[in-house]
Amino acid sequence: MRVLILGGDGYLGWPTAMHLSEAGHDVAVVDNFLRRQMSIELGAGSLTPIQSLHERITAWKEVSGKEIELFVGDIADGQFVDEVFTNFRPESIVHYGEQPSAPYSMIDRRHAVSTQVNNVVGTLNVLYAIRDITPEAHLVKLGTMGEYGTPNIDIEEGFIEINHNGRTDTLPFPKMPGSMYHLSKVHDSHNIHFACRIWGVKATDLNQGVVYGIRTPETDLDERLCTRFDYDEVLGTALNRFCVQAVVGYPLTVYGKGGQTRGFLNIVDTMQCIKLAVENPATEGEYRVFNQFTEQWSVNQLAELVAKVGERAGINVVIEKVNDPRIEAEEHYYNATHTKLLELGLHPNLLTEDVVEHLIETIKRYKDRILLGPIAPKTRWDPR
Amino acid sequence: MRVLILGGDGYLGWPTAMHLSEAGHDVAVVDNFLRRQMSIELGAGSLTPIQSLHERITAWKEVSGKEIELFVGDIADGQFVDEVFTNFRPESIVHYGEQPSAPYSMIDRRHAVSTQVNNVVGTLNVLYAIRDITPEAHLVKLGTMGEYGTPNIDIEEGFIEINHNGRTDTLPFPKMPGSMYHLSKVHDSHNIHFACRIWGVKATDLNQGVVYGIRTPETDLDERLCTRFDYDEVLGTALNRFCVQAVVGYPLTVYGKGGQTRGFLNIVDTMQCIKLAVENPATEGEYRVFNQFTEQWSVNQLAELVAKVGERAGINVVIEKVNDPRIEAEEHYYNATHTKLLELGLHPNLLTEDVVEHLIETIKRYKDRILLGPIAPKTRWDPR
Repeated sequence: MRVLILGGDGYLGWPTAMHLSEAGHDVAVVDNFLRRQMSIELGAGSLTPIQSLHERITAWKEVSGKEIELFVGDIADGQFVDEVFTNFRPESIVHYGEQPSAPYSMIDRRHAVSTQVNNVVGTLNVLYAIRDITPEAHLVKLGTMGEYGTPNIDIEEGFIEINHNGRTDTLPFPKMPGSMYHLSKVHDSHNIHFACRIWGVKATDLNQGVVYGIRTPETDLDERLCTRFDYDEVLGTALNRFCVQAVVGYPLTVYGKGGQTRGFLNIVDTMQCIKLAVENPATEGEYRVFNQFTEQWSVNQLAELVAKVGERAGINVVIEKVNDPRIEAEEHYYNATHTKLLELGLHPNLLTEDVVEHLIETIKRYKDRILLGPIAPKTRWDPR
Repeated sequence: MRVLILGGDGYLGWPTAMHLSEAGHDVAVVDNFLRRQMSIELGAGSLTPIQSLHERITAWKEVSGKEIELFVGDIADGQFVDEVFTNFRPESIVHYGEQPSAPYSMIDRRHAVSTQVNNVVGTLNVLYAIRDITPEAHLVKLGTMGEYGTPNIDIEEGFIEINHNGRTDTLPFPKMPGSMYHLSKVHDSHNIHFACRIWGVKATDLNQGVVYGIRTPETDLDERLCTRFDYDEVLGTALNRFCVQAVVGYPLTVYGKGGQTRGFLNIVDTMQCIKLAVENPATEGEYRVFNQFTEQWSVNQLAELVAKVGERAGINVVIEKVNDPRIEAEEHYYNATHTKLLELGLHPNLLTEDVVEHLIETIKRYKDRILLGPIAPKTRWDPR
């Protein structure tokens, strides 16, 4: 299948490109290097010594014998998107091409506006390109579990049957996102749903949990193929950040009470999920939502797990509860359905002490590259 | 109260400015004349001979003795918004400052993108200006009943209590908007709700129905104070358009089966509702949603009403069912709650034969100004 990966230079985009290429698909990647630019802006860096996208593609050719096509440009530019679609004629589009950080979107107004414009306009351009150039193509869009927020009822996969005043309808699950970034994903979801209803676009909206991990079967083939790994307060996610903090002897920074519970998954399961979604496309006009995670963890549970593994490895890990820079429920009910990907064949790789140990071992290899400055939480949801 | 009206040159914005000024409030208006520009782009025009905003303000001073302050600029420009807020220090912001047409947003990708960017960025800029400059100010934001779409259950005012798997929560009412414009209003609603939850902003989101009518107590004082009245396929709304079609002997263009049912209200009731919302503000952190309409009508019922009144006035009115250029349910359940504004004191002016007759009489006065070209429906939801 001809698969176009938007954001193919990112943490997940690059491993996905290799994984689908390895599986025999014709893969092309699009990127404007926004994530590398953000990293420069923040004075942060990838733990792993990532190569340029051009070099990655060359290395992948050497290692696997397979070609990945490259389009450099910004999907917020409609003309560029049309050129890519006309050239490559994708059958499947995996859309990671968005500003992916909640704290980044909360820095100030400028970052909030640029996040929402970048993400919403890019996705609109892709929807119109599908409608007008490749109407049979299937959109696999990365959303986030954060679109739902933390309601006091079970979270369903995209839709919920509501009984009200004696009548019944199945409607989009209500959204209570927690940052300007999460809001942009909610806007995308509404726009994509509309395109499916009105134009018959085929779409899968993947509400992904928090991804952890650093290695996939393909990144392991050659160090030049490694993916980026962020551990700073803006771009790093909870478990990845904790493991880096443990390695450098920095206290694990638990925000607030630490009862915040979210869905989590291993990066190798992201690879599985994307492949399953691509190879089992939605039908004409179908707007399909999968909750993409394998298990729920609270921040406290994660910190305790990392501390336990650290001790085993002879590291003295301190857990420090800091004032939550975010405004969010620090203790809440959380129970989200996630059966649709399992039904398609997902075999979860759950989070165990061994997995954390393995992650810490990999981080240790790059210990000298870790910058301490960008680790401490600075970006506050209400800076007043 | 110091009331800032964004979009103060529009169909509703200008009468609102006068109405609140007359009521004793200190009023300032902001506009970038987007609506006039759209009208030029479409080769359409206002039925009524509207004056420039500068002349309107001068005439209002002459007629009422009251000042309205003017800021010309684009609220998508954050620096301009900050200057206005710093200068005027509003206590209440009535936000009409958006691209208001569904068909306009569906012309093509460029119009879809510009609609969403314009509306979302303008509202984000206003939210940040409230947070940082006038945190006590109350935002009165114009949304639309079209945010809900046509679900098969009763529509509530913004929120719905959901019982699910033995638990209960009150959550935002699910949204199924029917155009790129309606989607932009859904995006705004999510962004505003977030600002209330996170920063304590006070907001009232008015999900307004379709407004009809041409005269208010203030526009009647002097012809220079008249408001714009659009009747073309892009900017005109159902009843206004039908009355103009009746006057020029053009068939009433009912789209599809005509069972499309919506909430409607008279322009004089919009004035009442805005005044009630402004004078009874939301509290700190409150995100309040009112469904702003007085009664439900189907398109067929409206066409029949206009035909009946036309006959009485000696006009031969023909109703013509044309292929629906939109993609929407043409027959559906529709029952939307609208009690909160009544509880605040709204006295509805319902749609009667006399009201239609009065509207037709006013239109006749300007009959020579009507352009026939822009009346026929051209903008299709799926142009393929």
